[in-house]
Amino acid sequence: MNKWYIEKGDQGDVVLSTRIRLARNIDDYPFPAKLDTAGKNSVNSLVRSVLFENDAKDFSYIEMKNLSRLQAVSLAERHLISPEFAAKKDGSALVLSADESVSIMLCEEDHIRLQVMKSGLALEEAFDIADKLDNMLSSKLNYAFDDRIGYLTQCPTNLGTAMRASVMLHLPALTRCGQMARLANTVSKLGLTIRGAFGEGSQPKGDIYQISNQITLGITEETAIANLKSIVLQLVAQERSAAAEIVKKPADEDKIFRALGILRNARLLSTDEFMELASLVRLGAARGLFEISVEKLNELIVSMQPATVSVANEDAATPSARDAIRAKAVREALA
Amino acid sequence: MNKWYIEKGDQGDVVLSTRIRLARNIDDYPFPAKLDTAGKNSVNSLVRSVLFENDAKDFSYIEMKNLSRLQAVSLAERHLISPEFAAKKDGSALVLSADESVSIMLCEEDHIRLQVMKSGLALEEAFDIADKLDNMLSSKLNYAFDDRIGYLTQCPTNLGTAMRASVMLHLPALTRCGQMARLANTVSKLGLTIRGAFGEGSQPKGDIYQISNQITLGITEETAIANLKSIVLQLVAQERSAAAEIVKKPADEDKIFRALGILRNARLLSTDEFMELASLVRLGAARGLFEISVEKLNELIVSMQPATVSVANEDAATPSARDAIRAKAVREALA
Repeated sequence: MNKWYIEKGDQGDVVLSTRIRLARNIDDYPFPAKLDTAGKNSVNSLVRSVLFENDAKDFSYIEMKNLSRLQAVSLAERHLISPEFAAKKDGSALVLSADESVSIMLCEEDHIRLQVMKSGLALEEAFDIADKLDNMLSSKLNYAFDDRIGYLTQCPTNLGTAMRASVMLHLPALTRCGQMARLANTVSKLGLTIRGAFGEGSQPKGDIYQISNQITLGITEETAIANLKSIVLQLVAQERSAAAEIVKKPADEDKIFRALGILRNARLLSTDEFMELASLVRLGAARGLFEISVEKLNELIVSMQPATVSVANEDAATPSARDAIRAKAVREALA
Repeated sequence: MNKWYIEKGDQGDVVLSTRIRLARNIDDYPFPAKLDTAGKNSVNSLVRSVLFENDAKDFSYIEMKNLSRLQAVSLAERHLISPEFAAKKDGSALVLSADESVSIMLCEEDHIRLQVMKSGLALEEAFDIADKLDNMLSSKLNYAFDDRIGYLTQCPTNLGTAMRASVMLHLPALTRCGQMARLANTVSKLGLTIRGAFGEGSQPKGDIYQISNQITLGITEETAIANLKSIVLQLVAQERSAAAEIVKKPADEDKIFRALGILRNARLLSTDEFMELASLVRLGAARGLFEISVEKLNELIVSMQPATVSVANEDAATPSARDAIRAKAVREALA
């Protein structure tokens, strides 16, 4: 079964992926922070039984304590779990679909963190899948829900819909034009937040950002999604316009082609350099400078992260061995 | 007719070319520095008549005053004339063979500067051709010659054989290992001199050097050539050994392949950057890292010099236009 990120998505030149995450808790249990391991295991068993008694044959159930540190970090690099969840052991578990489009963290901050990912801009579709799974769970579980304030969550910022919708965007042109600070400020006034999807530096690695709704209280899921979609489409249009200007400049065109030349030839590639060059090449690919699909680059950006490379390659013990393996994989993918 | 530098030469992985230059003067005339334009033209006509009355159908006769500054500098970049000669106008002329292997500067420092170039290491062959042309000229011209001190030349450092034999070497590995200062010191004790073949900086452009004999008095041409050849063969062996070590190092192998990637993809290439990258790629090609002939790189190194690019391309008026034209030509040559 193909992984979700191989699919060609809507607005795929700029939008890498869409994610819907629902936080849910079961009324009969305290929040995970107040549960011991036995209590967490009890919650996890309950949710598992509901999930697996239905047609859940492509789900796998992974106890976090059975994963190595690298395996757990790799899941976080692929945005299948939160970085915080990667550090959890006893009493935390992950339910993962074979195509990795559905992941359910059990006993993260809340009992259930149900996440659906789709390629490209697909907020309604992702919400629809998440909603069906949520309905299935809610038909068997006694959710902690208040008629006035909605779903109860450990962190009050999630109260209400307890839904976080986010879209991962590649914005190399807007970044190069120095527009991101202004845009971040603008979207924050609209109840949205924008931040780097890989690392938290002032310039996000690979110029890849995640934009998500901040407001969950006093708003329906549909409205939150419509707001986010409208802003994303504006960002997409702005990025396209800025990118069209950039690729016309000989010095920038030169940089893009050099980046491709290095990715196709280097024998050693660090993660940071790879992300920087991949961003330039993805910009060129998205503007049709050469015949490389943005989906191939999306896949590389996910699979070339350090822990993911190490998990996939037994001999990637040292950073330099990993850099050689990364360079070889990138060469072969872009040949 | 193919240019001489396209040929595959002996020791061609390290040796680009061999050059023999003979300085000759005609007894009946003062040295050019003491001649007015009419006097120089008289010398030139005399030599021309001797050259062209024989089977000289592939020679062309070029009056320097008829060349633009760029055309003249391009001839110097291709080592067909001296940089000093490129600045000369009235009273100076060049005889050039169609394959550019023979060039005769008339009224440079001496009346006749006869030069023969061959691909690779070919000292005897080049000398043989020069010697035949010299014999032909001497049978008709009254050379300034002294039985005790040999051929008379304006500069006393050329007295004797008045022969300068030089070999152009690509020594990227010895340069990177920091061996060149020591080697230059050693060869100077053996009556030879080594210097950059392109530009005169502390690190010669493209790591290309020219080694030549310094001694012309009290030595035969054969001995001077044998001495030079012996030292060149030692340098070639040392370069090969150093290069074999370098290409085994992952970080250096990475640099070489990146250089190839950039040359194959860049949209803008300055002369200096081109020479730096071409040196790395030639090192890789010479050690069999990829299927690119060193002759193709030799040809590029000659043809991508700034004045030569400008002469060959009408629209190379500005440095940035030239950089774009250079990048395109390099991409196409290495595709």
